[in-house]
Amino acid sequence: MITLDIIAFDADDTLWHTERLYVDAQARFVQLLAHYRDLEWVRERLFQTEMRNMQHFGYGVKAFALSMIETAVELTEGQVSGQDIHTLIDLAKEMLGAEVELLPHAGEAIPALAARYPLMVITKGDLLDQETKIARSGLGGYFRHVEIVSEKTTESYARLFQQHGIAPERCLMVGNSLRSDVLPILALGGHAVYIPSDLTWQHEVAQPPPPGQPGFYQIEHLGQLPELLAWIEGNQACG
Amino acid sequence: MITLDIIAFDADDTLWHTERLYVDAQARFVQLLAHYRDLEWVRERLFQTEMRNMQHFGYGVKAFALSMIETAVELTEGQVSGQDIHTLIDLAKEMLGAEVELLPHAGEAIPALAARYPLMVITKGDLLDQETKIARSGLGGYFRHVEIVSEKTTESYARLFQQHGIAPERCLMVGNSLRSDVLPILALGGHAVYIPSDLTWQHEVAQPPPPGQPGFYQIEHLGQLPELLAWIEGNQACG
Repeated sequence: MITLDIIAFDADDTLWHTERLYVDAQARFVQLLAHYRDLEWVRERLFQTEMRNMQHFGYGVKAFALSMIETAVELTEGQVSGQDIHTLIDLAKEMLGAEVELLPHAGEAIPALAARYPLMVITKGDLLDQETKIARSGLGGYFRHVEIVSEKTTESYARLFQQHGIAPERCLMVGNSLRSDVLPILALGGHAVYIPSDLTWQHEVAQPPPPGQPGFYQIEHLGQLPELLAWIEGNQACG
Repeated sequence: MITLDIIAFDADDTLWHTERLYVDAQARFVQLLAHYRDLEWVRERLFQTEMRNMQHFGYGVKAFALSMIETAVELTEGQVSGQDIHTLIDLAKEMLGAEVELLPHAGEAIPALAARYPLMVITKGDLLDQETKIARSGLGGYFRHVEIVSEKTTESYARLFQQHGIAPERCLMVGNSLRSDVLPILALGGHAVYIPSDLTWQHEVAQPPPPGQPGFYQIEHLGQLPELLAWIEGNQACG
């Protein structure tokens, strides 16, 4: 019989919308440079710059803003206007200040689950941005722990679980990224629920685990999570 | 009798040099804009931009870089060149990749203290930057906990101490900022050792606690810390 000691959640695009802020910002960025370069080329170069800068800047809006600015300078061979650069900085501030829009069912599922399990958030990105989003979401009070990490790998999860005295096989992680929320948890022998989102950043795309992989579950939205958990615990108990 | 359960350290300019990276970068920034505006005016406007952007961007190199770029655009009324903007982004990458230079005595004091006490780092800034600096410093293995926070206030320390089950009155914090490392700890009834550094960011300047404030100590360098700790514990034991 398996009992779950803790349910952990990714935050961006698992609890609230985030990727669409990046998609919107990118659309405005591409538009800004449209009279220099064709759209697809701008989009591709921005992604390349982001990947190249990852080692320096990590994840989050500030890193994205610096990569947009760098791409704008490079693609225009330095001809981008100061006004356009200022627009990109303002865009970053808009993203950081944007209203936190919960995903469907998050507002009901999280309080309901918090009554039955200790809950935790494990997210990556800018420290201040993630903290203020958790606070503004109205869900902050339901999470016993909030961990903001620079990278979500098997090693970083293992370290985190050790710090909190969590046995991976008694932990279930819920998230929208196979790469960051699902595969590392399965590698540690934990349970992972994948909730695909409409928009997924190219960097987060990964192959799903093979069919029948133990501990792997997929649902459509957070509203299905309480029932899935009941099934997992019941199923495991009977199995 | 007082026993110290844990010794906590600030990182930047307590364990290794940091502020001089900012001072050097700022000097190059001011130089870059020297043909537009006089030096003092540029310096002052950069600081104002940093303070205004704090609520959006928080602390750290990425925030600093975005504020430099914003200031450059504003002070030149959009005339700053794309090349100069690129130079500022490269400057940020240089800062993030700069060699970690330990402060005098850190390399000996930290291992010596780690043999007697659990040690902890409490620092603010960019998550990835702080993590990689701790790793590159060679001191990472001596710290039982590393906490990177978005702000160092009485509230944030109280939350951290509670998470770790630390009684403030049995904790001693060592740092170079009266505002961020000393005053909040004293407010919680803890012990704080102030080690002034040669360079202190204007934002971190604060009035020292009144003479005779219990729990407040000041030394010149980390090499004096083991002796101070012996004295504190001995003194308290005899008092």
